[in-house]
Amino acid sequence: MIAPRFPVNSQNVMSELVLPNDTNTLGNLMGGRLMHWMDIAAAISCMKHCNCPAVTVSVDNVSFRAPIRLGNLLTIESKVTRAFHSSMEVYLRVYGEDMQAQYRYFTNEAYMTFVALDPNSHPRAVPPIEPQTDEEKSMYEGALRRRQVRLVLAGKMKPEEAGELRSLFIKS
Amino acid sequence: MIAPRFPVNSQNVMSELVLPNDTNTLGNLMGGRLMHWMDIAAAISCMKHCNCPAVTVSVDNVSFRAPIRLGNLLTIESKVTRAFHSSMEVYLRVYGEDMQAQYRYFTNEAYMTFVALDPNSHPRAVPPIEPQTDEEKSMYEGALRRRQVRLVLAGKMKPEEAGELRSLFIKS
Amino acid sequence: MIAPRFPVNSQNVMSELVLPNDTNTLGNLMGGRLMHWMDIAAAISCMKHCNCPAVTVSVDNVSFRAPIRLGNLLTIESKVTRAFHSSMEVYLRVYGEDMQAQYRYFTNEAYMTFVALDPNSHPRAVPPIEPQTDEEKSMYEGALRRRQVRLVLAGKMKPEEAGELRSLFIKS
Amino acid sequence: MIAPRFPVNSQNVMSELVLPNDTNTLGNLMGGRLMHWMDIAAAISCMKHCNCPAVTVSVDNVSFRAPIRLGNLLTIESKVTRAFHSSMEVYLRVYGEDMQAQYRYFTNEAYMTFVALDPNSHPRAVPPIEPQTDEEKSMYEGALRRRQVRLVLAGKMKPEEAGELRSLFIKS
Amino acid sequence: MIAPRFPVNSQNVMSELVLPNDTNTLGNLMGGRLMHWMDIAAAISCMKHCNCPAVTVSVDNVSFRAPIRLGNLLTIESKVTRAFHSSMEVYLRVYGEDMQAQYRYFTNEAYMTFVALDPNSHPRAVPPIEPQTDEEKSMYEGALRRRQVRLVLAGKMKPEEAGELRSLFIKS
Amino acid sequence: MIAPRFPVNSQNVMSELVLPNDTNTLGNLMGGRLMHWMDIAAAISCMKHCNCPAVTVSVDNVSFRAPIRLGNLLTIESKVTRAFHSSMEVYLRVYGEDMQAQYRYFTNEAYMTFVALDPNSHPRAVPPIEPQTDEEKSMYEGALRRRQVRLVLAGKMKPEEAGELRSLFIKS
Repeated sequence: MIAPRFPVNSQNVMSELVLPNDTNTLGNLMGGRLMHWMDIAAAISCMKHCNCPAVTVSVDNVSFRAPIRLGNLLTIESKVTRAFHSSMEVYLRVYGEDMQAQYRYFTNEAYMTFVALDPNSHPRAVPPIEPQTDEEKSMYEGALRRRQVRLVLAGKMKPEEAGELRSLFIKS
Repeated sequence: MIAPRFPVNSQNVMSELVLPNDTNTLGNLMGGRLMHWMDIAAAISCMKHCNCPAVTVSVDNVSFRAPIRLGNLLTIESKVTRAFHSSMEVYLRVYGEDMQAQYRYFTNEAYMTFVALDPNSHPRAVPPIEPQTDEEKSMYEGALRRRQVRLVLAGKMKPEEAGELRSLFIKS
Repeated sequence: MIAPRFPVNSQNVMSELVLPNDTNTLGNLMGGRLMHWMDIAAAISCMKHCNCPAVTVSVDNVSFRAPIRLGNLLTIESKVTRAFHSSMEVYLRVYGEDMQAQYRYFTNEAYMTFVALDPNSHPRAVPPIEPQTDEEKSMYEGALRRRQVRLVLAGKMKPEEAGELRSLFIKS
Repeated sequence: MIAPRFPVNSQNVMSELVLPNDTNTLGNLMGGRLMHWMDIAAAISCMKHCNCPAVTVSVDNVSFRAPIRLGNLLTIESKVTRAFHSSMEVYLRVYGEDMQAQYRYFTNEAYMTFVALDPNSHPRAVPPIEPQTDEEKSMYEGALRRRQVRLVLAGKMKPEEAGELRSLFIKS
Repeated sequence: MIAPRFPVNSQNVMSELVLPNDTNTLGNLMGGRLMHWMDIAAAISCMKHCNCPAVTVSVDNVSFRAPIRLGNLLTIESKVTRAFHSSMEVYLRVYGEDMQAQYRYFTNEAYMTFVALDPNSHPRAVPPIEPQTDEEKSMYEGALRRRQVRLVLAGKMKPEEAGELRSLFIKS
Repeated sequence: MIAPRFPVNSQNVMSELVLPNDTNTLGNLMGGRLMHWMDIAAAISCMKHCNCPAVTVSVDNVSFRAPIRLGNLLTIESKVTRAFHSSMEVYLRVYGEDMQAQYRYFTNEAYMTFVALDPNSHPRAVPPIEPQTDEEKSMYEGALRRRQVRLVLAGKMKPEEAGELRSLFIKS
């Protein structure tokens, strides 16, 4: 049994300036470049939690609410919300900031799942998470439901077996 | 009313060699770098369909089934499955290929949504899609359900209003 | 004797969006960046043919007919035309595409030669090519003449020994 | 007279994973790549302070105490220590972290100076700094001495005029 | 009539360290990456000669004699050999250097042709070249023959019209 | 005792075109990108001197006198000025050049210190420097004083012990 760790142990802040090659012809950050940075941020949080290499297993549905402009500052906050044996769910929150206009805006949030690997590239156990704040506890609970969505969407679980998920659609 | 276009008009094939900077310390392609390439491939398919700039609105749940190794070939096939006024859903299929071992493997599929923009960066109407093959017709139908998942997940639609989605969980 | 393979086995399609850092101050794709992509496309075709690492030996004369603009789509089609023991000749065709104007234009073609290497970085034999279509047969024939041009230009063959090439200049 | 701002307003945290192309043949982060990231981090702190574009004017002597390894995490903390009319001094602290060994190490600190620019690229006034913590106050004081070192080293001030600096060498 | 300039006015030396992302899986510099650097070196020489933007028109046959290893130093020397109204021919010589073994080796030479552009992207006249050294005079003479090879290969001149070239194959 | 080498043996010239991703939103080269290139240039000079890997130990105060514009040519000249057992001091001079305006300008100079490493990453002795020209002799002499500045600034030497440095501030 591995001793549990707290979400705060895996917390990470990443900041990047949006440069010309990161943008499309309208001068907005390309969605895929943002996903690239989010993936690195999430990997850092996972490695802080499990202290070993970790690879991306899945990315949950992401919606981009606001375009991020060339020259703006991008901030990605991430932390591990829950661990399931060898896999970890990470929560990310992304902000843009127009430093000249002193305007900071929320652009999107996301959940990514990583798996920890041993030196032979096989999955290895990671410490469990012990949530502390109310927000962390609520994310910890929700992780089970999100995991069922992933399994159903990946065809590894039948919708009718996804008890947590079903309750969203069926009011008794 | 804009004349409809076929999925085949937006078909695109992209191929990339996995280079050292694209990989993690285990020599596997980083998930975010793949997302970056998938986003560019999807943007190309959308621009082929609507003939104007298009930006990423959302990325559906993606699961990566197999690691892609340094030096392997990556192939991304993409085409537009359905258009909703100013937005387009793109389907992507990703393959890895170890050319020395003559081994080609499926790594993941994904749906991304883009919105077409006019020169003032406001949404503009795009041509509707007219599916031709059976696979295209089935993807066209499914697009409605996937759109409800996105709206529910983004908090823009209540689960009980998502008729298409609900039927997955409730067997009459 | 290695079993022959068809040109179609080595066929590859690569597509790239022209980004700011790929262009000069006039907003046109730099010739060297295009050569870089062409080299990767050709290497992929060679590796698909010989299933082992392959390195660039020479690039034939290339003329660029049309500038490719920032934001345009670049498509590179490539396939192996003929193999000579350990070396392979690849043919590449490059197109630009202004997706907004729905205008696709031919920019250039090229022949590159690669050599297959064993794990000690020594040349190793590759399968011969068996051309199928008329175009493939004509390229297969022409490969001999182009090889003589290369050898003469590299100072490894005397012009008067280059029978295939001479016939171009001397009408009997 | 522009209202003063606090160092905390310009605080920034940047984190980066060291990738293959950032390292030399021994697998250590190249000093110049680190300077590149430090410069971006410092520019972000300055822009947070002055809310306008700012460019690097000088970099003070930097000593690198420990090599940073491939795959390690790099964290750069930065904040503005003092403003002189149109220029700002930024303090940066850099840490490496081997996440597998759970070992975090201090690699170097640095002072950089930036100047704020108006839309015509001329220097423009920035808000003064009002230090709050003891550390901030001590850095604020020291900024005057460091400024004299810069002016002497750049040949813009005679050593005997640099009163603050002289006192270091002459015990009365 | 524009005053002539000397080849030495356009001379340029470029040096680059070969980094991981520039190499293939065998640790050798990829041919296309070298072409990319050669193109930038040639563009610099042309702009030094004509003092205006210049774009790549063609690259003559290039043969790579020796692989360049990861970590080696690459040196590209370039200068304009001759100008034809709005076009310039540049000669490049490329060396690799293993600095640990103190071994410097010649890898390849090349001729590239650029055209000078006015602000409307139309060709504009450039100064003629006045060769000084014997080597420069010999390259200046040879430029005519190489130009005929290019025109013949590009299908813009019939082989029998290429007097300079023909003489190579026909001994009277 | 290792045989001495001359500064000219380590001389290097590097040239780079300033591309969009190297610049800030005002179109000027970012200071950190320049530091990155300077570090590579200095490393090349050191490796030419010691014929083994060498890593950055410190960068002396650098002042940037003039902005370098997008599309301009950057030239970095470097050579080793003096060696101290296992460390080398390199002098760099940086020029910008607007090739259209035929305007070449000095932007900055710098001193960097590198240490030579053996295969176990431990410092190893390097050849001493034997200055030849007057400028080289004067830089060789000054190296001692600059070394004291570095030691004092790094807290490894007390100001009152830095005899060379002290004399700058105290006129007898």
